[in-house]
Amino acid sequence: MSGEDAPAQQQNAEEQKQPQQETKTPAESPKTESKPDPPPTSASTEAAAAAADADTPAPAAEKAPEEDTFSYRALVLTGYGGYDKVKLQVKKGKPALKSGEVMVRVKMCGLNFADLMARQGLYDRLPSPPVSPGMECSGIIEAVGEDVTDRKVGDKVLVLNRSGLWQEVVVVATTHTFLMPEGMSFEEAAALPVNYITAYMMLFDFGHLRPNQSILVHMAAGGVGIAATQLCKTVNDVTVFGTASASKHEVISQGGVTHPIDYRTRDYVEEIRKISPKGLDIVLDPLGGSDTHKGYNLLKPMGKLISYGAANMLAGQKKNLFAVAKTWYQQFSVHTLSLIQGNRSVCGFHLGYLDSESELIAQAMAVIMDLYKQGKIKPRIDSTYHLEQVGDAMRRMQERHNIGKIILTTEPMKEEEKKEEAKKDEEKKKDDKKKDDKKKEDKKKDEAKKEEKKEEKKKEETKKDDKKPEEKKEEAKKEEN
Amino acid sequence: MSGEDAPAQQQNAEEQKQPQQETKTPAESPKTESKPDPPPTSASTEAAAAAADADTPAPAAEKAPEEDTFSYRALVLTGYGGYDKVKLQVKKGKPALKSGEVMVRVKMCGLNFADLMARQGLYDRLPSPPVSPGMECSGIIEAVGEDVTDRKVGDKVLVLNRSGLWQEVVVVATTHTFLMPEGMSFEEAAALPVNYITAYMMLFDFGHLRPNQSILVHMAAGGVGIAATQLCKTVNDVTVFGTASASKHEVISQGGVTHPIDYRTRDYVEEIRKISPKGLDIVLDPLGGSDTHKGYNLLKPMGKLISYGAANMLAGQKKNLFAVAKTWYQQFSVHTLSLIQGNRSVCGFHLGYLDSESELIAQAMAVIMDLYKQGKIKPRIDSTYHLEQVGDAMRRMQERHNIGKIILTTEPMKEEEKKEEAKKDEEKKKDDKKKDDKKKEDKKKDEAKKEEKKEEKKKEETKKDDKKPEEKKEEAKKEEN
Repeated sequence: MSGEDAPAQQQNAEEQKQPQQETKTPAESPKTESKPDPPPTSASTEAAAAAADADTPAPAAEKAPEEDTFSYRALVLTGYGGYDKVKLQVKKGKPALKSGEVMVRVKMCGLNFADLMARQGLYDRLPSPPVSPGMECSGIIEAVGEDVTDRKVGDKVLVLNRSGLWQEVVVVATTHTFLMPEGMSFEEAAALPVNYITAYMMLFDFGHLRPNQSILVHMAAGGVGIAATQLCKTVNDVTVFGTASASKHEVISQGGVTHPIDYRTRDYVEEIRKISPKGLDIVLDPLGGSDTHKGYNLLKPMGKLISYGAANMLAGQKKNLFAVAKTWYQQFSVHTLSLIQGNRSVCGFHLGYLDSESELIAQAMAVIMDLYKQGKIKPRIDSTYHLEQVGDAMRRMQERHNIGKIILTTEPMKEEEKKEEAKKDEEKKKDDKKKDDKKKEDKKKDEAKKEEKKEEKKKEETKKDDKKPEEKKEEAKKEEN
Repeated sequence: MSGEDAPAQQQNAEEQKQPQQETKTPAESPKTESKPDPPPTSASTEAAAAAADADTPAPAAEKAPEEDTFSYRALVLTGYGGYDKVKLQVKKGKPALKSGEVMVRVKMCGLNFADLMARQGLYDRLPSPPVSPGMECSGIIEAVGEDVTDRKVGDKVLVLNRSGLWQEVVVVATTHTFLMPEGMSFEEAAALPVNYITAYMMLFDFGHLRPNQSILVHMAAGGVGIAATQLCKTVNDVTVFGTASASKHEVISQGGVTHPIDYRTRDYVEEIRKISPKGLDIVLDPLGGSDTHKGYNLLKPMGKLISYGAANMLAGQKKNLFAVAKTWYQQFSVHTLSLIQGNRSVCGFHLGYLDSESELIAQAMAVIMDLYKQGKIKPRIDSTYHLEQVGDAMRRMQERHNIGKIILTTEPMKEEEKKEEAKKDEEKKKDDKKKDDKKKEDKKKDEAKKEEKKEEKKKEETKKDDKKPEEKKEEAKKEEN
């Protein structure tokens, strides 16, 4: 059954679900076509298959009974869990445009840590599944609603929204769109909003970064890490300590990290104390748990700890209850009297909880765009994946292989690529199966060994028991003597 | 026995005590002359008596065997407790000047909340008694140590130090002195450092105050409150909510408070919500306890709560264990996840714990002096007391009668004033005695009443008991019928 001729009944069922979601989600209005859940396979194969069903998105210029024929591909989180829970589906029907809204034909989407958290059910700003994730994208305005005067069809924009942007077509309020400056690529535009606004507001509003200060940037090769490093370079003589695995050090050094630290082989607290015995002015902490405590203790007087995530909760592709519980348990809590005696500040930041503050965001974006035009900042793209490959994209981010931003492109995969992908997936499946088989075999061997050991133990015990009567006899003899 | 001819033995005892104190206290080097503790009297009488003993501080120009004849009056905290624990004493011997230090002939001293806390033993930055309190003063440089090139004899300076400035003569590092600008009075100079640096660093470093923001200033008629209000006016369109009792509203309104709130008759949270339903950008909180919780809940996204004291701990002139325990118990503690979800910041500030950060303080002071020269800020003096009247000065502050800064002058009281003061004190004593007597009488009456009640109760119970047999008889009769 193809996604395009799904029974109407199912469409209605999907529709009835929608009103429970928050009103601002662009995923809401159009009808979602979804296939019944196939037996679990790897995410990419499935996505590729879904894409094959929906190769022909409605061209922007199409006329006539458009409302019926309009369709577009969208990534949908179908439930909490592993990478395969984000599926490529086809939505049908042209989304309605309200006053003040625009419709954007999406080119590129940005991937964020919050998306990984969301997939595991750890991010409460994403409406419950089924829902399209995605907080940022870039594209071209295809239609404008009533009362929209500051945007026109054909405008290239980048978009920031609470969710729902991992689709070929999105409808958002104009206040959530920002005109792309001359010379900015769609990749860069999709890579910019979340990371740079986050880094900017943390550094310059909460952090009040000034010349000659020092700062710790965790995950310095990640999206926020690279944005923060670039923004630090816009202030004179800021010392940036950046954690990343050794293979990324050259790149982050070139990007502006003064002291790269391999957190896998070194104690970063020790390394920092060696160079800055008095401590740091700012610590950006995306990790949570015990790292927040370490960050707090690294602060100088008037220092600021800015916590903006709990990446330590992410361990493996599915929710790891132990990692979540440990991070929660170790979560930092502070008393005002301790803050007073240390002259310290502890701040929390998450752009996802700031979506109603359009004015604040617009102010930050204006400065960021200006810095971009001056050539002072430039998003670094790590890699670009097709929507069909979202699973691989998420895996790359979660396993921390990226240096810079991971991008999803709405451009459909070419047939050859799909075949390649399918082959790879087959191989992966085989690999996984082999691994699974090996695990099972190992388990069997382990169990067999355990059984053997048990048998041996039993035998030994039986021997002991056997011995006992003899020993008793001997003892009896001794007593007799 | 006069303070000036105290036995040498006693001097030595005092001296032996000193090395236990922190090295930076100016009170340390000279010999302290102290009288044996007289029976407890009111602070002012005692201070006046001590002053009478020491009417002739060594004039600055005096020559010859100066080291022996040099003496000066100093306020000394003799132990933790009420207002009478700060006594006026005479110190003998010229303090030694180390390299980089200057000796200042003090004109005026500033009174701060930390001094009140210190007297009750609630401020751990003051070395243990006997010790001279005082974090700020103004005066004229009388001598400079080796290697001092940026100060000369005759310079008018204001001084900021961890403690020890409530004396006629102090020795401090030059980095703790700041040249007074043209036209600044000694009162203003003594009123400026603690309040304005505190307000400045809170508003512009932790708070990052910008145009169009809103702020809550508690105790808006106090020293920090007035400084903060003036500094807010240097930024365009800042809305200042200020709490103070109604009688002070006119003054603080003229000073720049947009919305004065009488915290004694109104719920300030409700009043603020009426005007700013979205909440506030900054809350300055000198109170602690439950007010910190209220402040936190008043914050907008990206809002900052800045806690800089626990004035709620002060209830009455002696340590009130209930108030201390309650404030501690209600002290605010926050989890980073709560901060993240609210996009909030919680900061702690206290200048007393920042004394080693000369550079930060010098930067702040430079801006403050500049603002003073431009006429944008001007310390408001509430009242000036002689050292002899320090008890009254502290009482005025603790009972929140002041509007602006309370100043201590080193100028000795005139004979007539002393007589007046002594009379007043006699009256106060009589008053206090009357009050005490009344209390005692009331207590007696209460006890008598209680006794009466007990008696009555007993009688009633006896009656009941008396009744019971009768009742029983009646019941028995009824049963018989």
